[in-house]
Amino acid sequence: MINVAIVGYGNLGRGVERALEYADDMNLVGVFTRRAPETVAAEKAEVFSIDDLFTKQDDIDVCILCGGSATDLPEQTPYFTKYFNTVDSFDTHARIPEHFENVDRAAKENNNVSIISIGWDPGLFSLNRLMGEAILPKGETITFWGKGVSQGHSDALRRIDGVLDAVQYTIPNDEIIERIKAGEKLELTTRDKHTRECFVVLADGASEEKIREEIVTMPNYFDEYDTTVHFVSQDVLNAEHKQKMPHGGKVLRVGHTSEQNKEVIDYSLELDSNPEFTASVLVAYARACGRLAKEGQTGAYTIFDIAPKYLSTKSDNQLRKELL
Amino acid sequence: MINVAIVGYGNLGRGVERALEYADDMNLVGVFTRRAPETVAAEKAEVFSIDDLFTKQDDIDVCILCGGSATDLPEQTPYFTKYFNTVDSFDTHARIPEHFENVDRAAKENNNVSIISIGWDPGLFSLNRLMGEAILPKGETITFWGKGVSQGHSDALRRIDGVLDAVQYTIPNDEIIERIKAGEKLELTTRDKHTRECFVVLADGASEEKIREEIVTMPNYFDEYDTTVHFVSQDVLNAEHKQKMPHGGKVLRVGHTSEQNKEVIDYSLELDSNPEFTASVLVAYARACGRLAKEGQTGAYTIFDIAPKYLSTKSDNQLRKELL
Repeated sequence: MINVAIVGYGNLGRGVERALEYADDMNLVGVFTRRAPETVAAEKAEVFSIDDLFTKQDDIDVCILCGGSATDLPEQTPYFTKYFNTVDSFDTHARIPEHFENVDRAAKENNNVSIISIGWDPGLFSLNRLMGEAILPKGETITFWGKGVSQGHSDALRRIDGVLDAVQYTIPNDEIIERIKAGEKLELTTRDKHTRECFVVLADGASEEKIREEIVTMPNYFDEYDTTVHFVSQDVLNAEHKQKMPHGGKVLRVGHTSEQNKEVIDYSLELDSNPEFTASVLVAYARACGRLAKEGQTGAYTIFDIAPKYLSTKSDNQLRKELL
Repeated sequence: MINVAIVGYGNLGRGVERALEYADDMNLVGVFTRRAPETVAAEKAEVFSIDDLFTKQDDIDVCILCGGSATDLPEQTPYFTKYFNTVDSFDTHARIPEHFENVDRAAKENNNVSIISIGWDPGLFSLNRLMGEAILPKGETITFWGKGVSQGHSDALRRIDGVLDAVQYTIPNDEIIERIKAGEKLELTTRDKHTRECFVVLADGASEEKIREEIVTMPNYFDEYDTTVHFVSQDVLNAEHKQKMPHGGKVLRVGHTSEQNKEVIDYSLELDSNPEFTASVLVAYARACGRLAKEGQTGAYTIFDIAPKYLSTKSDNQLRKELL
């Protein structure tokens, strides 16, 4: 059994708790939070103060760090990796090299293993970007996201004066996807790849026309996209757009293996729950983390560095017999 | 540079020759054949007798073995792995464990590396079967093949009296695929998953009706499928069904991350050329093979045992910066 601690208990932490229920080889030691433990109701797990992590150091094989990438993980992952094997979902792409260096140093100095930036992007999509270009070096990789809720864009809508609440969906352009798969060479602009759809609850007296204009012209967020705005009641927003956190996307690699032959690799995800799926990937890599640590490995790893067999509960023999 | 020899020069060997042209870090030493070398015209490579392999042992880092799985590779891979690092595409699923043991022994006794059963199935599809069940343990994996030409089924058609020539396509059932992705639990029979489409050239005087009946009732090959038979002229067969060797397929993993949430992973290939794509996968794993050997590793490996970074020409830093 691999003994796991969940550090941080938002949507992702809850997803990890659920994912661990389906992992027969893993045992959840508890949820560790910065909040007062008595104020946090986990689904089944015991909840402890984050300070209690250190009193349970001998009972924990891997900590799954479920904080945010903006401010939590850049501090937490190097820090906790001094004392534990860790897995995180750090997803600020531009800062990954720096994060890797910080975590790698902490891991090597303290003989621990950390696997960073695990999830689906970065994560499974990164893996498919690597494999696509390695297998079809003469070709192009394009990543599409959606259909799914973007938290950043939903937040931007909610900051507009006169908007009470809002949800924004990023939608990939299916026509463009089909044309790329058919082998067309397209010079794609941001506008071509995705569209944006907004569901907005207005405050009393706010002008639909004025707010629609403010949204579709908002720099960085919407001005480069074709954006559709729907005005709905809070009840409709709650019932139809806030129950689930669907997402997904696609990594396409279209390449030539000779002048006349084109090959297409299409890796697609259709997710009812973005945080639960990300959590499931984290749990599989927590298994790998526990095993690498048991082998005596140390240092920081990414999805690129892990042989697939480490993710499975099956023996090497069983894998060759049943899945190859 | 990794110096590569192609051993065997059929469709797959020709595909490897083409794939190596797109691999900037690899050098093709030559094609080695059991036939008289002067009777074999490679596209660009020098052609040697297979016996010359041993005189060039110092110039070769990896042999890509391009023989057939029925009789060539079970002999060749263990044999050549005594003298060389090797990669093969052994695809008789039921005999993989035995093949692995034989190759592993030869590799370890002689300090070489061999990567076996590389291609797309076994190969990339196997990898996605493993990752699908590791990430979504509560779910189902279904593999579909096609649309593509099945050599075995085409051969079976050509053995019928009164059939001059024929090509058979395996076609996945798109309606079933959509229903599975939508979360339906289906008890699938062989007939449900794929249909078969045959293009047949008749001998003078042969009866369409009689031959159609013989095809659709042929045990093992067609009787368990819905089969469509088209009779065409040799010219049409040559022009429309023999220029390319298209294939492809899909590994679907549909799983739940909680009672209410379903997640779908869909890995799909659409290939103009089955042998050229398989060859491209072999070349990427030949790179891994050369590197593992340089690191001092020994033994037999499968796709499950190889960390993805070994496939790429990019440094670890570059991979984290550009692709993660």
